[in-house]
Amino acid sequence: MTQQVTLYTAKICPYAHRVELALEESGIAYNTFEVDLTNKPEWYAPQVNPASKVPALAYGGPAVDPSQPSSESAKIAESLVLLEFVADISGTRLLPQDPVLRAKARFFIDTVSNTVAPAFPAVIARGEPVERMLTAIEKVQALLPAEGFAVGPEFSIADAALVPFLARAEVILKNDCGAFDEGTGLEAYETLSSDPKFARYRKYFGDIKARESFKKTFQGELIRSKFTEKTTPIRAQRKAQATSSQ
Amino acid sequence: MTQQVTLYTAKICPYAHRVELALEESGIAYNTFEVDLTNKPEWYAPQVNPASKVPALAYGGPAVDPSQPSSESAKIAESLVLLEFVADISGTRLLPQDPVLRAKARFFIDTVSNTVAPAFPAVIARGEPVERMLTAIEKVQALLPAEGFAVGPEFSIADAALVPFLARAEVILKNDCGAFDEGTGLEAYETLSSDPKFARYRKYFGDIKARESFKKTFQGELIRSKFTEKTTPIRAQRKAQATSSQ
Ligand SMILES: [Ca+2]
Repeated sequence: MTQQVTLYTAKICPYAHRVELALEESGIAYNTFEVDLTNKPEWYAPQVNPASKVPALAYGGPAVDPSQPSSESAKIAESLVLLEFVADISGTRLLPQDPVLRAKARFFIDTVSNTVAPAFPAVIARGEPVERMLTAIEKVQALLPAEGFAVGPEFSIADAALVPFLARAEVILKNDCGAFDEGTGLEAYETLSSDPKFARYRKYFGDIKARESFKKTFQGELIRSKFTEKTTPIRAQRKAQATSSQ
Repeated sequence: MTQQVTLYTAKICPYAHRVELALEESGIAYNTFEVDLTNKPEWYAPQVNPASKVPALAYGGPAVDPSQPSSESAKIAESLVLLEFVADISGTRLLPQDPVLRAKARFFIDTVSNTVAPAFPAVIARGEPVERMLTAIEKVQALLPAEGFAVGPEFSIADAALVPFLARAEVILKNDCGAFDEGTGLEAYETLSSDPKFARYRKYFGDIKARESFKKTFQGELIRSKFTEKTTPIRAQRKAQATSSQ
C-alpha cells in the first residue's frame, strides 16, 4: 500500500530543496507544507521536528491537513537522511542497485557536505571571499563523470544533494546580493559563466536546469529578493564603518 | 559471485574500527591490511585512497597481496560511505528493510557525527573539559530504544558508527590518558560507571562488549598505551607552564 508523504519545507532553504528535488524525481505523490522560518507554527517543533528545522517529512498514517499532523505518521528529519529515505521508497529510481555506484553517490554527497555546503553560508552570509565558493565548485566538478549526472546517466540523490547550493549560489553571485565584498559576486559569476575551467560545471548545471524537477522546485526570483533584503543592511553597515575609520 | 574485500585499516583509528565492526557482523569474508599512520606506504595514496586516510576498502578484482592493490578493484573511502556499502553487500544483516527503521539508523548516525565523534578529539586531543564527552554520550543515549541496539533487537551500522568512540573514550577516561585536566578523566569514568543517568549507556555498551565482533576488533591495551604516550608530553608541558607562571 502506498503511504502518504508530507514534506515540511521552505523555499529559501537549500537543505529542504534537496528533498523536494528527490521527491519530484521519485514519481511518488506527496504534499508540501511551507514553514515560515521567521515565524514557525507553534505545533511544528512538538509535533513534527523537535529540532524545529526544515526539512522534515511525515510518512504514513491517515491523510490529514499538514497543519494538524497525525501522531500515527513517522516523522523523519535531516536532509541527507531524507534523501536516502526517498531513495529507499522509490526502488532504484534515485540510487542505482550496484553497491559500488551507491558508494560513489554517497562519496559525492560527503564531498558536497565538506565543500559546497559549508562554502555557501561562509561566502553568502559571513562574507568570506567568493573564491571559497569557486574552489568548492571545482572540487565537486572534479568528481563528475565526463557526461551525465553525478554517478551516471540517471539523476540520483547525489545530484539532489548538490544542486540547491549551485542554484542559490548562481542567483546570489549574479545579482551580487551576498555578504561578500561588493562587485566580487558578479566577477565570480562571470568566471563560472565563461572560464574554460568551469566548462563541465556549466554543462552539468545546464542539464539539471532543463529538468522539470528543477523548474518546478526552484524560485530564483524569491532567492534574489530575500538575499538582497538580507544583504542591504550588511553592505550599508560596512560602508558606514569604512567611512568612520577614514 | 562473491567479490574479494580488503579493508585498509589502523587499530588506533575509530573511523576504521567502524568498518571492521560492520564487516565482522556482516559475515562477509574479508582481508585487512594494517596501515602505519605514522609512516604510510608510498603506494597507499596513489593506489588506494588519494586522501591518504583510513579506512579504505578494495572491492572486487583478483585476489592480490593487499600491498600490491589491483587496478581492477573498486576503491572506496570514508567510514560512513563504507558502513552503507557493507550494509548494501550483506542483504539486510546490518540495516533493516523497513525504510522508517533505515531512516532511524541514519538519523542515529547523523547524531553521532554531531555529538560523540567531534567530542572525542576535542576532549582527548585538544583538552576540552570531559563534560563535553558526557553530554555527547547523554544525547546519543537518549535515542536508544529501551532495550537492544540503536534501531532494534539487531546490531546495525548505527551501532558500528558509535561504538568505536565509546570504547576509546572508556579506556582513555579510565586511564586518565587524554589531554584533559589530570584527574578529570577518571572522575568522568566513575560518573559513566555509576551515575543512574548513564544506566542505559552501561547496559547498551555492556551488550556490545559481549559480542564477538567487538572482542575481535578492539584492543584496549593498545589504545591505553598509544594515548598515554601522546598525553605524557602534553601533561608535562602544562605542568611546566603552570610552574613558570607562578
Ligand atoms: Ca559529515
